[in-house]
Amino acid sequence: MAAAAAAAANGAGGGGGVPRPTNPMVTPLLTDLYQFTMAYAYWKAGKHLDRAVFDLYFRKNPFGGEFTIFGGLEECIRFIANFKLTDTEITFLRSAMPTCEDGFFEYLSSIDCSDVEVYAIPEGSVVFPKVPLMIIEGPVAVIQLLETPFLSLVNYASLVTTNAARHRLVAGKSKNLLEFGLRRAQGPDGGISASRYCYMGGFDATSNVAAGWLFGIPIRGTHSHAFVSSFMGLDDIIDRTLASSDGSNKCEDFVSLVQNWLARIKDAGSLRGTFRETNLSELAAFTSYALAFPNSFLALVDTYDAAGIRLDSGDLAYLSVETRKFFRAIEEEFGFIGFGKMNITASNDLNEETIDALNKQGHEVDAFGIGTYLVTCYAQAALGCVFKLVEINKQPRIKLSEDVSIPCKKRCYRLFGKEGYPLVDIMTGEDEPAPKVGERLLCRHPFNESKRAYVVPQHVEELLKCYWPGTTSEPREELPSINEIRSRCMGYLDRMRPDHMRRLNPTPYKVSVSAKLYDFIHFLWLNEAPVGELQ
Amino acid sequence: MAAAAAAAANGAGGGGGVPRPTNPMVTPLLTDLYQFTMAYAYWKAGKHLDRAVFDLYFRKNPFGGEFTIFGGLEECIRFIANFKLTDTEITFLRSAMPTCEDGFFEYLSSIDCSDVEVYAIPEGSVVFPKVPLMIIEGPVAVIQLLETPFLSLVNYASLVTTNAARHRLVAGKSKNLLEFGLRRAQGPDGGISASRYCYMGGFDATSNVAAGWLFGIPIRGTHSHAFVSSFMGLDDIIDRTLASSDGSNKCEDFVSLVQNWLARIKDAGSLRGTFRETNLSELAAFTSYALAFPNSFLALVDTYDAAGIRLDSGDLAYLSVETRKFFRAIEEEFGFIGFGKMNITASNDLNEETIDALNKQGHEVDAFGIGTYLVTCYAQAALGCVFKLVEINKQPRIKLSEDVSIPCKKRCYRLFGKEGYPLVDIMTGEDEPAPKVGERLLCRHPFNESKRAYVVPQHVEELLKCYWPGTTSEPREELPSINEIRSRCMGYLDRMRPDHMRRLNPTPYKVSVSAKLYDFIHFLWLNEAPVGELQ
Repeated sequence: MAAAAAAAANGAGGGGGVPRPTNPMVTPLLTDLYQFTMAYAYWKAGKHLDRAVFDLYFRKNPFGGEFTIFGGLEECIRFIANFKLTDTEITFLRSAMPTCEDGFFEYLSSIDCSDVEVYAIPEGSVVFPKVPLMIIEGPVAVIQLLETPFLSLVNYASLVTTNAARHRLVAGKSKNLLEFGLRRAQGPDGGISASRYCYMGGFDATSNVAAGWLFGIPIRGTHSHAFVSSFMGLDDIIDRTLASSDGSNKCEDFVSLVQNWLARIKDAGSLRGTFRETNLSELAAFTSYALAFPNSFLALVDTYDAAGIRLDSGDLAYLSVETRKFFRAIEEEFGFIGFGKMNITASNDLNEETIDALNKQGHEVDAFGIGTYLVTCYAQAALGCVFKLVEINKQPRIKLSEDVSIPCKKRCYRLFGKEGYPLVDIMTGEDEPAPKVGERLLCRHPFNESKRAYVVPQHVEELLKCYWPGTTSEPREELPSINEIRSRCMGYLDRMRPDHMRRLNPTPYKVSVSAKLYDFIHFLWLNEAPVGELQ
Repeated sequence: MAAAAAAAANGAGGGGGVPRPTNPMVTPLLTDLYQFTMAYAYWKAGKHLDRAVFDLYFRKNPFGGEFTIFGGLEECIRFIANFKLTDTEITFLRSAMPTCEDGFFEYLSSIDCSDVEVYAIPEGSVVFPKVPLMIIEGPVAVIQLLETPFLSLVNYASLVTTNAARHRLVAGKSKNLLEFGLRRAQGPDGGISASRYCYMGGFDATSNVAAGWLFGIPIRGTHSHAFVSSFMGLDDIIDRTLASSDGSNKCEDFVSLVQNWLARIKDAGSLRGTFRETNLSELAAFTSYALAFPNSFLALVDTYDAAGIRLDSGDLAYLSVETRKFFRAIEEEFGFIGFGKMNITASNDLNEETIDALNKQGHEVDAFGIGTYLVTCYAQAALGCVFKLVEINKQPRIKLSEDVSIPCKKRCYRLFGKEGYPLVDIMTGEDEPAPKVGERLLCRHPFNESKRAYVVPQHVEELLKCYWPGTTSEPREELPSINEIRSRCMGYLDRMRPDHMRRLNPTPYKVSVSAKLYDFIHFLWLNEAPVGELQ
C-alpha cells in the first residue's frame, strides 16, 4: 500500500522506468553555480565531451569510528535516470549567466544521462575511506553537473545510516529502536531522509508518518505531555464504556474500574508505600487514552514528575529497574501473567553515549526512542564525501593538495580471510587481473611505502557493480527494496571483525592498492609535484 | 523572474492566496504518528474541539550566544493556509491506525485551519528564550497535528539563520559572505533551506542554483579543482581569440598574450623570485576559464600546492597578505590601476572561530566562502524549540517536569531604554494593560523570586502580530519578501546592545513576566506539584 502510494506520488519517471527522486526539489538546478560556469568553460574550450571518470569517496569515517554505511545510491540513480533541464530552467540559467553564448544553452537543453555510466558499491554496505563508493564516467560537462546533487544525496544519507547502525550496535539486537527526530531534523527533507536511512541502518520504526507513507517503514507513536495536560480530571471523560477486543464483553464504566484497581494496588501488601498521590488529570488522560487504544496502550509517565524523578540517563536506569520491579510485583500480587514483562520505553535526549552508560549501569528498558542526536548527527554533523576527477580521455589525473586523490579508473575488491571476516579492500587499475582465491597478493598502503602486506584471500568480492550502464551493454543492477537493503546492512555488520566495530579504540580496517597501482600513483605524483625551493 | 518562477512552481495555493510550502513534501502527513493517535483519543473523548492555546518557544540560545534569529514563519503560514488531508492520505492513515473508528477519519478529512489563529514575532527578528515565537490557538486535535511540522519548519530555519548572523557579525559588514554548503548539507532540502536562511541572516549570495531560482537569492560560482585537473596543457585550448567587452578590439591569440605577460612578470625587478615553476595544466585551465568569463574571472589557486602552501586558517591569513602584496606590486610595476585591490576569496572549512582567528592575525581576504560548518550548524546541530499547551478552554495549563512552561495565553512586549537599546522582554496575561512609555513597571524573572527590576520604557513594541486570524476579525500581517526580512534582521542586529552580541562572554538579555503573571504561575505551580515524601 505505502510503496504503491509512494510510487504514484513520485511519478513513474523517465529513464529505464526508474521513478523520479523522492524529493521533487531534487532537480538539475540543485547544484552549485560553478558546475554550470565550468560546463560553459568546457563547452567554450570544446572539451565538454571529453570522457571523464570521477570517484565519489570520503576520507575519514565519522563519529570516531572505523566504519561507514553507504546510503543514498537509489536517489542518485533516480536523479540521473530523470535528468533533463526544462525550458523554464534553461531560461533561468540564461538570466543567471548573461554573458554566455546561445549555443551553450542549446547544448544544455539537449543533455541527459544516457551516455553516463555509474558503478557503485551496493547501498547499505559497510564501506571505508578512499575506496570509491561510486565511479561516474561520462562527458566531463555532464558529470560536473552531477557532482553537487550526488554529494548532497550521499553525504547525509551515509552519515545518518552510519549513526543509526552505531546506535543499533550499542543498544544490542534485542532492543526496539524508534526514531523520533522529525521535529529536530534539519528541515523537512532532513527529517524524511533521517527516518528512511535510520531504518536502513537498523532502527525498527519511526514516528514520522510521511516516511511510513513514502517508504513503507513501520510507524509508531502514543501521546505527548500536552495530551496529559489537556485533561482537568476524570469528569472530562464522557463515554466510559469499553468492549473487550473480541466483542464478547463490555465494561460499562471503565473509569470506575481503573479507580477500583488503583485502590486495590495501593492497599496490596507487597506494594504498600510505592504509590503516593495520584495526579487526577494524568489519570484521566491515561484512562482516556486506554479507552481509545485498548490494545496498544503506552503511557507517558513524566509529565508530573516534580517530586524528584528526573529522566536523565542515570535515573533512566534506576527508574526502569524500579518500574520493572513494580510490574513484577503486580504480576505476583494479582496473578496477571506477563504483566512483569510489560514494555518499558525510554526517550530523553538519548544517544550512543547515554545508551552505553545505561548498559553499564544495568537497566530494564525494552525500547529506546531517539531523536535529536540521531537525526542531526550531533556528534558530527557532516560527512566529507568528495567527488574527484581521476581520469580524462584515458589520461589519469591526480590532485596533489592536502589529500592526494588516487588516480585512474579503478576496480575495487574486498578480500576475506580464513575466519570469514573481511581483511582488506584493494584497488587496482581497470585492466589488472582480479585477485584470486588462494593466490598470494601484495596489498600496499596507497601513500606510505613501508605499509604493505601479503594476503591469501579465501574469498573475493568485487565491490562496485554497474547501476547505470550508459551506452555499454553491461547488465544493470536492480535497485532493491528498503527492507532488502536493511537486511543486507545488518548482514554486513554481522560479518565484520568485532574489533573494527567497537566503540572504544576500534582497529582501522585496511584499505590498499595493488603494487602496480602504487607504482603508478608515485610516478604521477613525482611527475606533477614541483620541487620546492627553500628561501 | 526568479520570484515569479518560484510562485509558479509552488502553485498559487489555497487559503487566502498563500502559496503552498516551498517543499512539496511538507504535507499534513509530515508529522509524528502520536499527533494522529492523540487526535483520535481527543475525538473519542469528545474533546477534539476543545479550544487550546500552544506556545512555540525555545529554552536556550544556540552556539553559546545570547541571541537567536527567528526563521521559518512564512513556511508555517503556507502550511496552514493549505492544510487539507487528501483521500489517499486518509486511506493511508486508516491502514496505519486500523483499530480507529470510521467517524474519526470522516472528521480528519473535514478539517482545515480556518478556525486556527496564529500570532507570531516577525520573521528575521532577534528573539530570546522562553518568549513565544508563535502562539497557536484552535481546536486541540487540529493544533496537535501542526506541532511537528511547525517545529520542523522553525527549528532548523532559526538555527541556521542565527548561525549566518553570527558569521556576519564576526566577518564584519564590509566582507562578502558566500554560502557554499549545498553538498554537505543534511539532504537536499537542508541545502535549499540553508541557502535561503543564510541569506536572511546576512549572507550576500549562495552557490546553490535552486535557491537562486526559488527565492531570487544572488548566486555565485567559479570553478573547482577538477576543472584545473582536466587540462593537460596549453595545447588543450583551441579557440584562442578574445574580444574586448565593447567588441571594439580582438586579441587573436590570448594564450600567447598570457604567456608573454607571465614572462614579463617573472622578469620584473620588483617581483623577481616570487614566481617559480608554472604548472602548465593549471595555466591552461585558468586561461581557458578567462576566455569563457573575461568579465568575471576568479581563479582557484590551490590545486597544485604540493610545494608547501596549505590553506588552513593560519596560512590563509599569511597567504592573503602575500597575494595582496603581489597584486599591489603588479599594479605598481605595470601601472594597472586597481589591480592591487583585486578580490581575494578564501574558502576552506571556515567557521566563526577561523574567521575570528584571521581577524586577529590580520588578513587581506575580501570574501569568505563558507560551507559545512555554516549549513550543518556543526557547532550545535539542533535548536530545541518546543510546542507546549498553555491553556485549554480558557483554563491555564502548566507543565512541571524538567523545564517549567509559562501558562496562559500571553502578550509579549519588548521594552527599550534611553539609549535606544532593547532592555527587557516582558510577558503578561492576555487581558493585562500594555506597558506604557514613561511608566514604571516591575519586571520579574518568571521562576526566580529574587530577580526583578523596575523599568521605565522609552519605547514599547508588542512582539507578536496576527499572521493567521482564523475566525476573528483581526487584520492579517502580510508575508514580506526575503529581502525585506533580511533588511529587518540586519536592522534588529544593529539595534542590540553590543555586549549581548559579542562572541566572548555575552551578557544575557533579560526575559521577564509581569508581577500578576508571576503570582499566577506560582499559584498554579504550588497547586499542581505534589508534595514529596522523603523515604
